[in-house]
Amino acid sequence: MAQQQRLATLDSSMADRLPAYSRSLFDAKTEKGLTFEAIAQHLGRAEVAVAALFYGQAQASAEDVDRLSSLLGVPKEAIAAQMMGFPDRGRSGPMPPVEPLIYRLYEIVQNYGYSFKAVMNEKFGDGIMSAICFDTKVEKEVDETDTTWVVITLRGKWLPFSRF
Amino acid sequence: MAQQQRLATLDSSMADRLPAYSRSLFDAKTEKGLTFEAIAQHLGRAEVAVAALFYGQAQASAEDVDRLSSLLGVPKEAIAAQMMGFPDRGRSGPMPPVEPLIYRLYEIVQNYGYSFKAVMNEKFGDGIMSAICFDTKVEKEVDETDTTWVVITLRGKWLPFSRF
Amino acid sequence: MAQQQRLATLDSSMADRLPAYSRSLFDAKTEKGLTFEAIAQHLGRAEVAVAALFYGQAQASAEDVDRLSSLLGVPKEAIAAQMMGFPDRGRSGPMPPVEPLIYRLYEIVQNYGYSFKAVMNEKFGDGIMSAICFDTKVEKEVDETDTTWVVITLRGKWLPFSRF
Amino acid sequence: MAQQQRLATLDSSMADRLPAYSRSLFDAKTEKGLTFEAIAQHLGRAEVAVAALFYGQAQASAEDVDRLSSLLGVPKEAIAAQMMGFPDRGRSGPMPPVEPLIYRLYEIVQNYGYSFKAVMNEKFGDGIMSAICFDTKVEKEVDETDTTWVVITLRGKWLPFSRF
Amino acid sequence: MAQQQRLATLDSSMADRLPAYSRSLFDAKTEKGLTFEAIAQHLGRAEVAVAALFYGQAQASAEDVDRLSSLLGVPKEAIAAQMMGFPDRGRSGPMPPVEPLIYRLYEIVQNYGYSFKAVMNEKFGDGIMSAICFDTKVEKEVDETDTTWVVITLRGKWLPFSRF
Amino acid sequence: MAQQQRLATLDSSMADRLPAYSRSLFDAKTEKGLTFEAIAQHLGRAEVAVAALFYGQAQASAEDVDRLSSLLGVPKEAIAAQMMGFPDRGRSGPMPPVEPLIYRLYEIVQNYGYSFKAVMNEKFGDGIMSAICFDTKVEKEVDETDTTWVVITLRGKWLPFSRF
Amino acid sequence: MAQQQRLATLDSSMADRLPAYSRSLFDAKTEKGLTFEAIAQHLGRAEVAVAALFYGQAQASAEDVDRLSSLLGVPKEAIAAQMMGFPDRGRSGPMPPVEPLIYRLYEIVQNYGYSFKAVMNEKFGDGIMSAICFDTKVEKEVDETDTTWVVITLRGKWLPFSRF
Amino acid sequence: MAQQQRLATLDSSMADRLPAYSRSLFDAKTEKGLTFEAIAQHLGRAEVAVAALFYGQAQASAEDVDRLSSLLGVPKEAIAAQMMGFPDRGRSGPMPPVEPLIYRLYEIVQNYGYSFKAVMNEKFGDGIMSAICFDTKVEKEVDETDTTWVVITLRGKWLPFSRF
Amino acid sequence: MAQQQRLATLDSSMADRLPAYSRSLFDAKTEKGLTFEAIAQHLGRAEVAVAALFYGQAQASAEDVDRLSSLLGVPKEAIAAQMMGFPDRGRSGPMPPVEPLIYRLYEIVQNYGYSFKAVMNEKFGDGIMSAICFDTKVEKEVDETDTTWVVITLRGKWLPFSRF
Amino acid sequence: MAQQQRLATLDSSMADRLPAYSRSLFDAKTEKGLTFEAIAQHLGRAEVAVAALFYGQAQASAEDVDRLSSLLGVPKEAIAAQMMGFPDRGRSGPMPPVEPLIYRLYEIVQNYGYSFKAVMNEKFGDGIMSAICFDTKVEKEVDETDTTWVVITLRGKWLPFSRF
Repeated sequence: MAQQQRLATLDSSMADRLPAYSRSLFDAKTEKGLTFEAIAQHLGRAEVAVAALFYGQAQASAEDVDRLSSLLGVPKEAIAAQMMGFPDRGRSGPMPPVEPLIYRLYEIVQNYGYSFKAVMNEKFGDGIMSAICFDTKVEKEVDETDTTWVVITLRGKWLPFSRF
Repeated sequence: MAQQQRLATLDSSMADRLPAYSRSLFDAKTEKGLTFEAIAQHLGRAEVAVAALFYGQAQASAEDVDRLSSLLGVPKEAIAAQMMGFPDRGRSGPMPPVEPLIYRLYEIVQNYGYSFKAVMNEKFGDGIMSAICFDTKVEKEVDETDTTWVVITLRGKWLPFSRF
Repeated sequence: MAQQQRLATLDSSMADRLPAYSRSLFDAKTEKGLTFEAIAQHLGRAEVAVAALFYGQAQASAEDVDRLSSLLGVPKEAIAAQMMGFPDRGRSGPMPPVEPLIYRLYEIVQNYGYSFKAVMNEKFGDGIMSAICFDTKVEKEVDETDTTWVVITLRGKWLPFSRF
Repeated sequence: MAQQQRLATLDSSMADRLPAYSRSLFDAKTEKGLTFEAIAQHLGRAEVAVAALFYGQAQASAEDVDRLSSLLGVPKEAIAAQMMGFPDRGRSGPMPPVEPLIYRLYEIVQNYGYSFKAVMNEKFGDGIMSAICFDTKVEKEVDETDTTWVVITLRGKWLPFSRF
Repeated sequence: MAQQQRLATLDSSMADRLPAYSRSLFDAKTEKGLTFEAIAQHLGRAEVAVAALFYGQAQASAEDVDRLSSLLGVPKEAIAAQMMGFPDRGRSGPMPPVEPLIYRLYEIVQNYGYSFKAVMNEKFGDGIMSAICFDTKVEKEVDETDTTWVVITLRGKWLPFSRF
Repeated sequence: MAQQQRLATLDSSMADRLPAYSRSLFDAKTEKGLTFEAIAQHLGRAEVAVAALFYGQAQASAEDVDRLSSLLGVPKEAIAAQMMGFPDRGRSGPMPPVEPLIYRLYEIVQNYGYSFKAVMNEKFGDGIMSAICFDTKVEKEVDETDTTWVVITLRGKWLPFSRF
Repeated sequence: MAQQQRLATLDSSMADRLPAYSRSLFDAKTEKGLTFEAIAQHLGRAEVAVAALFYGQAQASAEDVDRLSSLLGVPKEAIAAQMMGFPDRGRSGPMPPVEPLIYRLYEIVQNYGYSFKAVMNEKFGDGIMSAICFDTKVEKEVDETDTTWVVITLRGKWLPFSRF
Repeated sequence: MAQQQRLATLDSSMADRLPAYSRSLFDAKTEKGLTFEAIAQHLGRAEVAVAALFYGQAQASAEDVDRLSSLLGVPKEAIAAQMMGFPDRGRSGPMPPVEPLIYRLYEIVQNYGYSFKAVMNEKFGDGIMSAICFDTKVEKEVDETDTTWVVITLRGKWLPFSRF
Repeated sequence: MAQQQRLATLDSSMADRLPAYSRSLFDAKTEKGLTFEAIAQHLGRAEVAVAALFYGQAQASAEDVDRLSSLLGVPKEAIAAQMMGFPDRGRSGPMPPVEPLIYRLYEIVQNYGYSFKAVMNEKFGDGIMSAICFDTKVEKEVDETDTTWVVITLRGKWLPFSRF
Repeated sequence: MAQQQRLATLDSSMADRLPAYSRSLFDAKTEKGLTFEAIAQHLGRAEVAVAALFYGQAQASAEDVDRLSSLLGVPKEAIAAQMMGFPDRGRSGPMPPVEPLIYRLYEIVQNYGYSFKAVMNEKFGDGIMSAICFDTKVEKEVDETDTTWVVITLRGKWLPFSRF
């Protein structure tokens, strides 16, 4: 096997910004050798959503906790209260991002922000795309020249500004 | 017709951060009553790319300039040199964005940045999604409950880190 | 009449951050001696919404433009295109605010932000109060000791985070 | 029971910015399964005020401490000195807020700040709404279309600038 | 006369941050050769308050405008509307201050801020000194060793935090 | 006794920014139930200066250490070396301040900075008020309407700019 | 031997920003008395790449881990999982850099950034030099006057902006 | 000819940060249709150095001015005094850079800064690479797979820290 | 003469931050071909002080204005009022400095700040070196190896902290 | 003996930013009762350089370590490796400095930066004063009026910009 699967782990210097269960979950994931894709299938949730659970950016349901607990072998009581609580979002990394992969996403907002706005305004009116009533996925596409492309889909409810 | 089409215009207080031709293009667009969708069809380019041309965030080809000039009635010589030059990207707005629509995109990066990274790393290896070898589109989706959704697709080439 | 009505005017050093029509509207308002309350009644809109129109933070309907134009004596064509366009919100002042009145609102967010979050989370679940599907009003209350109170009501739609 | 009551808990990565008693109070609250609403009723105080006590943003009276101690089973001596001391306010989270719920409140100040100022100035004169001689509450409203709204009331004493 | 009276003038590079009347007032003050002390006596107001009027940081009464207009020879109509409007305070200079004199005041807050807080809290309880219901003065003191001292008095109403 | 004396204590989340002896002094002060006023009298120093000693913003004399040690029951050797060393000033809190009481002092500098400068320049010439050769005090004033006022006096040596 | 070889070590105050294995590797390197040049030869990789491995800025292959482990005497299991994971890049130091050596590189970008852009654009078209598909080296050059020069080579793939 | 040579031009929104002659030089360059490579050959200087002259980041010799003047047809007197003066370097663009091409250079410093330092320190001792006694060039490399690479060489004198 | 004397001129993009007379003085200096050294001799003042006058960072005496006016041929009335007014110091450039020469001075403060403090504290006690009661000079030193050194002398009055 | 010698010590809240040996050295210095002057004499180095060694801002020679070790009684092996390594400079304190003594040095750069540049440029040409090939000293001067002056000498090699 030329290229063994490598797993996303939790950088120890980053753990302080995250809830305590993040470390337990990542440690168990590493030990079990599970990808986010595998965990997502087990939970019946999207891959990015599962990663967001691990980074403390999403709320778990009771069933999520059950399944995570049994799949990863982490005692339910060690994670249930915090994971089913209300996430304190937005603190997983600095902004502007210093991580090159995340910076590229930031750069897309920086460069195309007003273009997105203009196009959305003409298509939908005066409002915003919700980042709350929202889901997202990451897909792999390999074209005819064997080039690999990342395709990210952002899908949010359109919210028009109230007239008052 | 209950809701007349409204057009994206250029806020006068923003024009100083943009190249001089931005104002000419937006003024002509308003006068001709054209949407970015209409202009994009005429140019055979994507809607967001055309908005990016207007905001000085993308480079025009000679043919783009020809078609824009004839469609909008802007003299070619007034825009060709600058639009075919090399854009000085990234200055159309402040970061963090203060515009609510653009802020939501920024917030998605802030909240899900590390989740995107973890998922991409496991799917593609150690690298980034290019924001250069890249295209994007905005689509409207209306679901069965008549709710309107915005669907943004970000598609970039995967670039693995060199080993050296 | 002990205390003549004083009117909010547009500080000249602030005009550069706002759309061009802001100055025209404020100038006409001053000349006509109209309060935002009077204009709001004429437009059938809320007072804060009308001030937001003047500061370029809200979109006008065709009828708003008609009524403003006739009430203030500002030619419709001078304001219609921009006011009916899509506002580029969020740039009317610096953050953190330096204006004492606005700073106090900022301070309330700074001091009580997490308290609001905790209370809302327990009352509504995991989500946010929308600032888009939103309205607000300012009222005066004079209590039995003749003390004057400002009562601001913020009313936004509750948006639960999507599960995906 | 479809949706069990979930409780606001204290994110461990946030505890360092708060006084030591915050953690004790939140832990006890979780163990007792109490909402802020329940605690507020027991204390005879407003919900947001009680949350502010937990986050170290408000001063407790001797009676508050007595009641909290008996309700939560936290020894009085462990919390009395600090909770009855003078809070060092304003450090519970970063500004601009990164938490989406709190950011929306910040965005309201960013977008409507000058509109609030203009309306208040015309209604009350030259001054500010106090954030000190101040109270606030959060209410739930369900309209005829079954949509849920959050209604936040901010109520502060009007303070005119002194003439000197 | 060894040391001729020198007058505070308006730095041209600073005028853009101030209302338009600031320049007119300073120009007239220079031409008439008047100190703030002289103007303050004429207006029956405090010196710092008069300087604040010139810098657009305080609201003028109708009588202030009358007296300034006649003393300085500035047409009333050129200044009345703006000076009697509601000041947009806080933008006269950068923070942290770069001007050495102003920096020293900032440094006092930086070094003694928590000491002031501790002393006031013990003397007055949980609250703040108002910066709105507030006045201030600058006095000269020459001691027995012929050393010159500046004495600034800051006097603000004590506002206790509401209990709610 | 309607209102028991409450004491300023050291917020645990703030202790890291202060020298180690700050915590010992505050703890002993709390245990002994002493106000800064009482300690100041015992030391023959000003109240704000004593608070500054506690916050590590002022240098102690050998006599100060003796008296503090005996009054508070803190072993002299535990505090002498550091307290008689040279303070590393200015790090007790963030700037701009987030604490409302301290922010009000900052706001006074922000709003009246240039007014203070103009008045001082005309009264004293080109120079600054020293923040080093400097003392300050906080006093309580109750006026005829029973309103409580805080009076802060800042008194610094005038330092003219050298001509070279 | 006039000048003994000195080795780069890990500043203890910097270790918190880096992954846990950084400290182990640096400690072992110091104990073994190895330069990055020696380690690079052993690994068959570039010197800067090896330093980047130590600072947690590059991903190790299984073979890198084997060789590092045997060369440095660090147990493989202590470093393999993290070093073969996906680096969380960009957090090794503050930006702008405060270290003089690193600041000089930053200054080159600050001073010559637009010059590099103009020259590259004319040579290559509209695009960027990749920092991902990228390698770099540091060489020593001693000229005829015995002056020592540092020669840094940055070599990245040219990525043209997509037309879409 | 499929791809006509495109020239670097001066973005009008950037001109304010540069000396006045920048605009004249760029305008003349555009009109004459000259690349930096062509101008550099004419001046006998490096390409990046010539671009730096155009952006006001390098000092011109009398001969540079003569040659530029005759090549571009710009009157010598219009540019000589400023171009032969002492450049006020470092203000051509914001830091962190928002332009993607320049950001990639910044990212290299951010990611590899400490690695460069460690390698240089071991190779050269305790010191820095000068950014003053410094030259740089940009070269194109096309490898056997027809991939285009940018090769930037940074070459600076090694300066050891003085021992004192 | 191989190397003609070059003169410091005023960068046009910097003039907006400076008082209006700066431009007049620099223009006249250029036209007359005068160095700061020559002007300083004529005025009987230090070179740095004269440059500071030109940059609006120092106050002129009546005699300074007389001499400057006659030496440079600038009408006295064009500069007297502003130059003899009270400088608004500290705004001539950004901090941290982007100009390499000025950055090096900043870097000395960054690297040696605490060392200077420790040495001064032990030599002088608890206090500061005044930057107001202060003078400075720049000298050239050529050593036996023909190396040129810059020697800057900073000389300020020692101000001990008051005990209060 | 009226005024006993006080020694510079290491503020405990600052130690985290410094290398581990800083604390050992300062502790030993305090215990031995040694000034930097005394240590400098023992080492044959300048006072500021010795303080810089203590703060981790300068590299020690083997002989420095020997002498420090024997003078202070600190085991050589506890400090040699780190002190003879390559310092990670610039992190001893925040910039802008909050310490008043250090701020005054910063203020000198802020106020006189461009004046130093103009004078140096005219005296030396286009270049910088090195902060690397650099030494500095602090001296005491008492003038005829018994006033104490601090005299800081900054002496750096002049580095002309390369022409390339």
